[in-house]
Amino acid sequence: MQVIVDLCVVPLGVGVSVSEHVTACQHEIEASGLQHQMHAYGTNIEGPWDEVMAVVKRCHERVHEMGAPRITTTLKLGTRTDRHQSMQDKVDSVRQRMQQT
Amino acid sequence: MQVIVDLCVVPLGVGVSVSEHVTACQHEIEASGLQHQMHAYGTNIEGPWDEVMAVVKRCHERVHEMGAPRITTTLKLGTRTDRHQSMQDKVDSVRQRMQQT
Amino acid sequence: MQVIVDLCVVPLGVGVSVSEHVTACQHEIEASGLQHQMHAYGTNIEGPWDEVMAVVKRCHERVHEMGAPRITTTLKLGTRTDRHQSMQDKVDSVRQRMQQT
Amino acid sequence: MQVIVDLCVVPLGVGVSVSEHVTACQHEIEASGLQHQMHAYGTNIEGPWDEVMAVVKRCHERVHEMGAPRITTTLKLGTRTDRHQSMQDKVDSVRQRMQQT
Repeated sequence: MQVIVDLCVVPLGVGVSVSEHVTACQHEIEASGLQHQMHAYGTNIEGPWDEVMAVVKRCHERVHEMGAPRITTTLKLGTRTDRHQSMQDKVDSVRQRMQQT
Repeated sequence: MQVIVDLCVVPLGVGVSVSEHVTACQHEIEASGLQHQMHAYGTNIEGPWDEVMAVVKRCHERVHEMGAPRITTTLKLGTRTDRHQSMQDKVDSVRQRMQQT
Repeated sequence: MQVIVDLCVVPLGVGVSVSEHVTACQHEIEASGLQHQMHAYGTNIEGPWDEVMAVVKRCHERVHEMGAPRITTTLKLGTRTDRHQSMQDKVDSVRQRMQQT
Repeated sequence: MQVIVDLCVVPLGVGVSVSEHVTACQHEIEASGLQHQMHAYGTNIEGPWDEVMAVVKRCHERVHEMGAPRITTTLKLGTRTDRHQSMQDKVDSVRQRMQQT
């Protein structure tokens, strides 16, 4: 089962700036070798369910190891069985329609 | 690593009513033996990370098996290393404060 | 347009405990007179779109006034035009199905 | 109060493909003149709170007008009072750190 997720990890108890912890998560995501794309409020990742979820877990572990006592994460997860659709396909589909309408 | 999640599974392509699919997810959650509490826009589940995530995966698998070609899920995940806090602790903490303020 | 939302307000830069700020939000929600139900990872609120959104805004304003320099909120919003459905209807619908299956 | 949101509107009861409805939302967002950036699982929008929320409402109204009887939306909202930070600032901050670590 392939999944596209949108991951937003928020450490609590580390002050107002969270970019150090978000950067550590990005390193974990890059190390996974999975397709991913960062945006201003999270990161999209696509791949096999177990691999993607393993990265999400490593992000929590890593951010705790960095000293954050608490984390709240928002994760959107999309799966479909009717056909394969990549992150790029989703964006292209809307961009193409926008030019037509 | 213990986690408290808020899980909201939304099947697409099955019409406007999704309660049949949500009910199937509730059965999966109950079968897991994990502490859980349904509310009007999702279900809170607490337990060890891997067990909770296994239930989330089974929900997706089950809903696809029921014929839904596409699923979009929103999941909030909370972990903390400073102390144990159950779902009930979180609600009690706010309710107690509300009476004092 | 009626809406049912699930609101989870998370203050950053105020330390690891957020229950004081969550309690302040609950007071704002109660003061609105809107139907609401707190759970372990947020609060469901139902009512007319503009009224519900006004409460969400007041929560952000109040939490900033309390000294939180940064807030990240997760909000689910459900609307439907086919029929009226309350928060209680949603929970009842699933609970009833669970007894039948 | 400035806000950066991540908006993901999901119509139910319209079949498995939702790109037509997502495209309509993109047109509403473009018409608002607000800074925005689409990604594979939503669209980031930044601007004054009331203007951004007005667009979110118009998206729901538009998608219902197109015939969707039900919508479930996931919205992340970030506000901060300590300093101004644009969507681009957030991405740049992490990208810059990634090169250093």
